[in-house]
Amino acid sequence: MNAGQPVVSPDPALPFGVTASAWRDPAPRVVVRAGAAALDVAALADRGIVSSGAGPGRVGWWQSGSLDAFLAAGRTAWQQVLGELRAAVSDPAALPADAVLGLDEVQLVLPYSVADYVDFYASEHHAMNLGRILRPGQPALPPNWRHLPIGYHGRSGTVVVSGTPVRRPRGQHRVDDADRPEFGPTQRLDVEVEVGFVVGAASRHGEPVPVEAFAEHVFGVCLVNDWSARDIQAWEYQPLGPFLGKSFATSVSAWVVPLEALEAARVPVASAATELTPYLREVEPWGLDVSLELSVNGEVLTRPPFSSMFWSAAQMLAHQTVNGASVRTGDLFASGTVSGSSPDEVGSLIELSHNTKFLADGDDVVIRATAPGSDGTTVDLGEVRGSILPALG
Amino acid sequence: MNAGQPVVSPDPALPFGVTASAWRDPAPRVVVRAGAAALDVAALADRGIVSSGAGPGRVGWWQSGSLDAFLAAGRTAWQQVLGELRAAVSDPAALPADAVLGLDEVQLVLPYSVADYVDFYASEHHAMNLGRILRPGQPALPPNWRHLPIGYHGRSGTVVVSGTPVRRPRGQHRVDDADRPEFGPTQRLDVEVEVGFVVGAASRHGEPVPVEAFAEHVFGVCLVNDWSARDIQAWEYQPLGPFLGKSFATSVSAWVVPLEALEAARVPVASAATELTPYLREVEPWGLDVSLELSVNGEVLTRPPFSSMFWSAAQMLAHQTVNGASVRTGDLFASGTVSGSSPDEVGSLIELSHNTKFLADGDDVVIRATAPGSDGTTVDLGEVRGSILPALG
Repeated sequence: MNAGQPVVSPDPALPFGVTASAWRDPAPRVVVRAGAAALDVAALADRGIVSSGAGPGRVGWWQSGSLDAFLAAGRTAWQQVLGELRAAVSDPAALPADAVLGLDEVQLVLPYSVADYVDFYASEHHAMNLGRILRPGQPALPPNWRHLPIGYHGRSGTVVVSGTPVRRPRGQHRVDDADRPEFGPTQRLDVEVEVGFVVGAASRHGEPVPVEAFAEHVFGVCLVNDWSARDIQAWEYQPLGPFLGKSFATSVSAWVVPLEALEAARVPVASAATELTPYLREVEPWGLDVSLELSVNGEVLTRPPFSSMFWSAAQMLAHQTVNGASVRTGDLFASGTVSGSSPDEVGSLIELSHNTKFLADGDDVVIRATAPGSDGTTVDLGEVRGSILPALG
Repeated sequence: MNAGQPVVSPDPALPFGVTASAWRDPAPRVVVRAGAAALDVAALADRGIVSSGAGPGRVGWWQSGSLDAFLAAGRTAWQQVLGELRAAVSDPAALPADAVLGLDEVQLVLPYSVADYVDFYASEHHAMNLGRILRPGQPALPPNWRHLPIGYHGRSGTVVVSGTPVRRPRGQHRVDDADRPEFGPTQRLDVEVEVGFVVGAASRHGEPVPVEAFAEHVFGVCLVNDWSARDIQAWEYQPLGPFLGKSFATSVSAWVVPLEALEAARVPVASAATELTPYLREVEPWGLDVSLELSVNGEVLTRPPFSSMFWSAAQMLAHQTVNGASVRTGDLFASGTVSGSSPDEVGSLIELSHNTKFLADGDDVVIRATAPGSDGTTVDLGEVRGSILPALG
């Protein structure tokens, strides 16, 4: 190994990403993070260190400069490649120098084509907090809330990678109970701290995916900031749900952590102790003990615990397909705002400030997360970052 | 022309579609309907009759077996190709025989990759009817309804082409006000008669699309059946909107009629006479005088008039982008159920039957439509068809 070479550490998590270019080649390529290094997976495959997926009539997984082909390959392929990568990083000195990039050499882009994007509402604490603020005088939780993971479709075309600036949206909103709405930049721009799940293997249209098949379809986990304009949302969302209050941008972390790296983080969710319609009953727990952290301008504001969710991602997948809807490679579904039971664990500013303080232009927002890994290690889920640009004039 | 050759008529509408195969070649290819014939556009381009879009470093529009590349090419390209096609069909005898297929020779497939799918709620009569049925005792129209075209994101992965059977979905629903939901096949499977708009040219993220730019972005019009499970929807839709009650399937017509063919059908919408936020004010009318017809098992049940909509498609496009959200090639947005003012003009069974009679297994549902064309001709918008399969056991 050269003196100046980035340090590869035997990180068992092996997050996947895509860099816009490398080695002065302007083509995007798949990389895997290992300590302070990013491994060029195509270069490893060229040496036979990692499988390529190529064969007669089949283009390899690493040729397209996106994770799409590898995601579609399914769990057996994922396990094979992860095993090969773990073996490779366990002996860093043996890695070919032309497969090892420094993290400062990669320019991470959105690593897969987002197909459908679904956002859930799976934290009971968050749903209670928001119900009290947005629908005062009514029950905080709607009657369906503990019977199914409420979710809705979001806009996949405006999912952006971490680091993309977010322009403050303009829209209609109503001041108090005025007869007519006003139009202008949102005055209540908020964050939502969420965990996202990236579907690899598609399901068949018409065939529900049972909770047990979760790991057959979901490849990995990312962090999500579901930016929200609370005033636009409050005016528009009855009766068909959020639309422009959310669709201007949704930020995702650039690294996707394989589900397999989170085995040691699995915990039961609160819904497991309740009486559920059979298709929502988990056989094995798919809650995750992910510790999140929300910072604005470098100051940590809250630490939401993902272990406090009422619904698991396996239940979300079973629910969204129980009517026969299919999932596709690149589908992204997110948990909804993660809020714990205490005020310093909430995942949005509307909750933190009791609907009084929101984002200012120029604010830099970062969500980070870690989880327990195998053998006492820690899995770093990276970050999702975005700063606020002023509204169009 | 051979005696057995399909009759090409100089239909100025020129709907675009994609056939799964032709000429015993199993590759999909773009076709244009002209009377009783379907023209193989790649074959016309090979002869120089129609532009190909190919050039140095550019693959042609007709090579991929989908409309995607042509849609992305933008309005100047659309106008050029439509002009060339109109010239070609005006002299049918001059068409090369190997570019002319019979309509019975084509197997139409979904002609473009659906990016984001948005469904609006733009008929005042429908919104009033549904408000009365679903929220009795409350105002039929929510306070925002006449200020903005309410819409929500649907599932693009389950948009299917006309002719695809639709399996009755299962899901949670609540009988009366029971404490707990039941689970099983929907008992209230409904249709929604809608008109859809297919985006060709993308917009830039962060930049709203004004109403005047509608025809720069939208290529054409299709028919949509937004199948709805009313009992599943009623239980799930508060507070984040419809999800599984809609996401099992959305059917679209196989032919996309270019917007240009509907110039003679343009009419003002009712919202034009109201006081609107400036970004929603139409300079030129983009309502459309499309006459729809809903049949079940061969019996015409209703004739919804699209001219009765409150919001136009140009207003829908301006609204969904006013917050900076972008549109992409293949985005599909639909009008929401089209209902006129009289009982025989409603666009759903819940309205027609006052919430008493829905679809049975085996029912065959067809929506057809026509519109006035230029010079007294009639534009045929084709049909969207689907039959109901029984629920999984």
